[in-house]
Amino acid sequence: MGLIVQKFGGSSVADTDKLKKVSEKIINEKKSGNDIVVVVSAQGKTTDRLISEEREVTDNPSKREHDVLVSTGEQITIAKLAMMLHDFGYKAVSLTGWQIPIITNSEFGNSRIRYIHNETILDLLASDNIVIVAGFQGVDENYNITTFGRGGSDTTAVALATSLKAERCDIYTDVDGIFTVDPRIVKNAKKINNICYEEMLEMASLGAKVLHNRCVEIAQKYNVPIYVKSTFEKDSIGTKVSNQKPLEDLVINGVAKDDNISRITIVGLENKIGKTYELFKLLSDNNINIDIIVQAFGETSMKNITFTVKMTDLNRTLKILNKNKDKLNAKEILHAENLSKVSIVGVGIANKPGVAADMFEALYEKNINMHMITTSEIKISVLVNIEDANIAVNAIHEKFFK
Amino acid sequence: MGLIVQKFGGSSVADTDKLKKVSEKIINEKKSGNDIVVVVSAQGKTTDRLISEEREVTDNPSKREHDVLVSTGEQITIAKLAMMLHDFGYKAVSLTGWQIPIITNSEFGNSRIRYIHNETILDLLASDNIVIVAGFQGVDENYNITTFGRGGSDTTAVALATSLKAERCDIYTDVDGIFTVDPRIVKNAKKINNICYEEMLEMASLGAKVLHNRCVEIAQKYNVPIYVKSTFEKDSIGTKVSNQKPLEDLVINGVAKDDNISRITIVGLENKIGKTYELFKLLSDNNINIDIIVQAFGETSMKNITFTVKMTDLNRTLKILNKNKDKLNAKEILHAENLSKVSIVGVGIANKPGVAADMFEALYEKNINMHMITTSEIKISVLVNIEDANIAVNAIHEKFFK
Repeated sequence: MGLIVQKFGGSSVADTDKLKKVSEKIINEKKSGNDIVVVVSAQGKTTDRLISEEREVTDNPSKREHDVLVSTGEQITIAKLAMMLHDFGYKAVSLTGWQIPIITNSEFGNSRIRYIHNETILDLLASDNIVIVAGFQGVDENYNITTFGRGGSDTTAVALATSLKAERCDIYTDVDGIFTVDPRIVKNAKKINNICYEEMLEMASLGAKVLHNRCVEIAQKYNVPIYVKSTFEKDSIGTKVSNQKPLEDLVINGVAKDDNISRITIVGLENKIGKTYELFKLLSDNNINIDIIVQAFGETSMKNITFTVKMTDLNRTLKILNKNKDKLNAKEILHAENLSKVSIVGVGIANKPGVAADMFEALYEKNINMHMITTSEIKISVLVNIEDANIAVNAIHEKFFK
Repeated sequence: MGLIVQKFGGSSVADTDKLKKVSEKIINEKKSGNDIVVVVSAQGKTTDRLISEEREVTDNPSKREHDVLVSTGEQITIAKLAMMLHDFGYKAVSLTGWQIPIITNSEFGNSRIRYIHNETILDLLASDNIVIVAGFQGVDENYNITTFGRGGSDTTAVALATSLKAERCDIYTDVDGIFTVDPRIVKNAKKINNICYEEMLEMASLGAKVLHNRCVEIAQKYNVPIYVKSTFEKDSIGTKVSNQKPLEDLVINGVAKDDNISRITIVGLENKIGKTYELFKLLSDNNINIDIIVQAFGETSMKNITFTVKMTDLNRTLKILNKNKDKLNAKEILHAENLSKVSIVGVGIANKPGVAADMFEALYEKNINMHMITTSEIKISVLVNIEDANIAVNAIHEKFFK
């Protein structure tokens, strides 16, 4: 009998009834004789609520204190889940990141795991406990609380599976695996039974919010198989993510959508070495995540840079940019709101020049305007108006998976 | 310049505006050149909310996991307050119980402090930081989170003041000190400028919810003066609690009220050694706090025991008692709901036999029925219907402080 790591996300633990369903999944696995380590996220919208409370206090939170604040969400879940398992008659003990401890570097809000002490967990397992771990958090060498950034509970789960040499890591979510497209948007979305780490990484980075990228990277590095399963369906088989490549490549593996994007263009940035760095350093220091970046040269002494940020970061970003407009020698700062990024991904794209044309045709047929296009070897992304996004995803999926 | 410990309770930090007022109090003290350690509670009703969420999960929470859960409330406050002080331009660092660490025994939910490591706090003060400490929590020697029970932030504050050899400990609250009676109930309540530890202890145990008993005990033991002040009034002088006895004893020091009491009577408990112990062990194992206990012998082989519990614990208590009725050989379990305990306290009571008569007369004049009476050397408590409680407090206060 082996060791299984199970991870349950925020929607799987959102309320008491759902915690009960989660407990059943855990107990089933325990009954089959395995040792169980469970990783959980904060319940439902808890993290969002904490962040909106934080915004009430300050626009510019200390990164250390931010981690002290948001790490409480997972701590609440582990306590409740342990209590519930006791009620079902099982031994269970909760552990926060610092209690294990999971030692990280000191990059607050986006810290990296250095090592995990296995002893506490192994001792608890040896005395027949189910171990419930708070996802997304660790502690640095000076006893500061650190977090891994949004979705970091996946990272915790896979890192624990690696460190504890688990047989496998089961990531439970509210859908029954990984699909060619979000099944809530497209009716005839197709479930993928097997996907390799590389393709999964592309899908994840494009807004298919099933697995956190960093967890896939760790799983790939240490070759831990991940199973993505449904919390709420009985006998969910789900999707296996492993180093196994599909025998026959599909042209594209899936269609992904990322909502609430805004586009910012800096017109007339001085074309001088270091200016681009200065711009993105400024944004990164202010904890603003940039997604796509496109640069187009204008006049010889100036350039335009366009990039995207989340809608929630737009006002803050514009405020910072306008405050530093002179320092950056920027002429003008433009922006467009309420956009969605729609992408296709697949290793076949590079070798099939018709793919981009097919994608654009699908959008043209629905009369959908594209506000930005970026392409790489294995993906094509376009920005569309948010109200067109679902139509776009359906049209593209229909084109490639009919 | 000395070291000052300031403590702000849940209502003082309830929202962002109040956190601003608290920040101003802290900054004022900092500006006068002192080193500042701030202890805060969970915001507003946060702890109550966490406990009601816990009740959703289980009627019988593991005490260890309970502490993991409720300790998150204070952790949220310290992060927010540190962020706000940064916004005001001050250096501040938050510390949880385990980060300091405050080492306690392992009695979850009601743990006692063993020792406090001063080094981390002193280092942070030395580099000009305001140190913000999460009240009410510590850590045992096996890295388990522990809490001190409700109101335990006062204990944290006084314990830190003792350990750090602070000049004084300022407990900020929403009233301007300690009064002869709750000023929200009685209009001409009188502020007490000086009170000694012993009298304060009696006042606190009787529902004058200003200071937590354990903090007064520690302050008394190490002779740390406590100042109870208003968070919201400017230049609040408040009340000094110290070993200084008043020159002239008043007959009574104050009138206190404790709402939401229920009374339970166990009729016909077997009159056998160990039965009473068995009863109260059962309740204590289930984490039910008993307040008054009165025992009256009935038939030779049986006795009746009457005791009070909080209304919030009533249903749980009755359920447990009925389940164990046979085991306890109890004949009948009676109860009365929605009562209040009204008490007077004062070192003069023992030597003045007329005091009880005066108190009962005040109630008689208002036609208020007493459901239970208990007296000790320095206090007299009666149970009245909750809707009579404020009238009772006013009448008694009028009688003694006219």
